[in-house]
Amino acid sequence: MLAGLQAVVDPGEIVAVVNTGDDAELYGLHISPDLDTITYTLSGASNPVTGWGLAGDTFRAMEALDRFGAPTWFRLGDADLATHLYRTGRMDEGATLSEVTAEISRAFGLGVRLLPMSDDPVRTRLRLRGAEEVAFQDYFVRLRHSVAVEDVRFEGAERAEPAPGVLAALTDAEIVVVAPSNPVVSIGPILAVPRVADVLEARRETVVAVSPIVAGAALKGPADRLLAELGHEASAAGVARFLAPWVGAIVIDEADGGLADEVRAAGLRCLVAPSIMKTPEAAAALARVVLGSGRTAGPPDGASAAKGP
Amino acid sequence: MLAGLQAVVDPGEIVAVVNTGDDAELYGLHISPDLDTITYTLSGASNPVTGWGLAGDTFRAMEALDRFGAPTWFRLGDADLATHLYRTGRMDEGATLSEVTAEISRAFGLGVRLLPMSDDPVRTRLRLRGAEEVAFQDYFVRLRHSVAVEDVRFEGAERAEPAPGVLAALTDAEIVVVAPSNPVVSIGPILAVPRVADVLEARRETVVAVSPIVAGAALKGPADRLLAELGHEASAAGVARFLAPWVGAIVIDEADGGLADEVRAAGLRCLVAPSIMKTPEAAAALARVVLGSGRTAGPPDGASAAKGP
Repeated sequence: MLAGLQAVVDPGEIVAVVNTGDDAELYGLHISPDLDTITYTLSGASNPVTGWGLAGDTFRAMEALDRFGAPTWFRLGDADLATHLYRTGRMDEGATLSEVTAEISRAFGLGVRLLPMSDDPVRTRLRLRGAEEVAFQDYFVRLRHSVAVEDVRFEGAERAEPAPGVLAALTDAEIVVVAPSNPVVSIGPILAVPRVADVLEARRETVVAVSPIVAGAALKGPADRLLAELGHEASAAGVARFLAPWVGAIVIDEADGGLADEVRAAGLRCLVAPSIMKTPEAAAALARVVLGSGRTAGPPDGASAAKGP
Repeated sequence: MLAGLQAVVDPGEIVAVVNTGDDAELYGLHISPDLDTITYTLSGASNPVTGWGLAGDTFRAMEALDRFGAPTWFRLGDADLATHLYRTGRMDEGATLSEVTAEISRAFGLGVRLLPMSDDPVRTRLRLRGAEEVAFQDYFVRLRHSVAVEDVRFEGAERAEPAPGVLAALTDAEIVVVAPSNPVVSIGPILAVPRVADVLEARRETVVAVSPIVAGAALKGPADRLLAELGHEASAAGVARFLAPWVGAIVIDEADGGLADEVRAAGLRCLVAPSIMKTPEAAAALARVVLGSGRTAGPPDGASAAKGP
């Protein structure tokens, strides 16, 4: 989605507020998977096959870890490790996650400004059926999200401060775009950071979401199952109802055209458009729809857009 | 020296008490260069060209760190990184350095038992001429020890506890071998750990050193310059006087035969023997001399030897 937006808007006008609930400490390193995936993707360095990590990366360190019988289900490539080493080293020196994120973004030549939702640790934790609670990466990577979830919470969220610039970006942006991402574990943590939900609610009419559910299924990841397991409908209409307090408009895929009335009944403007971003062109076309939708209701001055995650 | 000892004594009878004053935190990782160099060397995995790191290692992570403009003077190979990642991860889980060292030793199939001198942080710091104080790796690696040193201290040593097993090994060993290592910054930190010096002093007659200075020069590293800069004589006799309170015998190289009387005047037994370990055979021969020397004065029961570092 961000790639699509930066194809149609000056990247310098885009601020991305990124989920850090997926962050983890592994082998002493601070890993920020969402920040890194965005950085690698926007800079063209990402591995297009896996969807994570860097293209052409090697796994010598992980292979050597096998010697110790250490868990290696979280695969860190050798060049990818450098990002985590740099981030951890800088944070040990006292730098905030925001500051390091700006440095890493600069090193990768990003035009978009990336902001972690908070510099304070917020950790998404999932209670699995059977009462065991696990960290997000345990659920998502180790267990391959193939287990039923009974509850989700965002540890530390209530004490977290929005990172510098987050509230200003969400307040001042011409349009806030909520990316087609998992509403529960990707959008949810951002909404859980104090004052973020209030800011969005206050400007709800120019907050535009794209449904991550198409024809009842998540395009990627477990959003459909998670929604259903937590009592929501796994459909574009379910997403609309989930986001209704903070989102004034939603783009749903043409496959879900029949749900438009249901979406409008939830109090959102509904745009039906091709929403599967198979190509850069499709992403750019979707970005135009999204921005157009926000603009129909929003103040026309300014051009910045914030999105999360 | 340890390789030589394990060639002539059952490795299971050898305990190595290892300097951790060179340890460093880099990029958030706990690096123990002396423990790792010993582990890699004894297991045959070390890089014989550089004298540090693993043979055949790659440097993808370090190359990728360049992107961030981060200092990369401390070269960590990709497979070597796994050791530091494992150690740091385990210590974050609450394991002590001793425990992790045992696990890493086991993973590398070591027969010798490695003990860090302490599980508590002790950090060798050097005040350079001109009053700047730097950490050991700054001095040794970044500055390539080509700067004059005015003072050395072992930060944290006075509060450090000897690691479990250290005092027992140094007390119970048939012979304690002080390896031909830098007396100031490699032997010194071990002696600075509370009670270690007392234990050695009490059994001084069966503590045998090998001089790291041959014909007035260090075989490796800056031992000669450091000794001179800190007011000691950079000679085998100077080493003997430095170690005299804790060491009852010293092996000096044949090139230094003329110093034997001077060494004896310092109160040590003096053995003159080839001490440059160019080959495994030379190392084993030297080990036999060392053990024989200790045995001439020591109790003949037991067969364990402790050495440091």
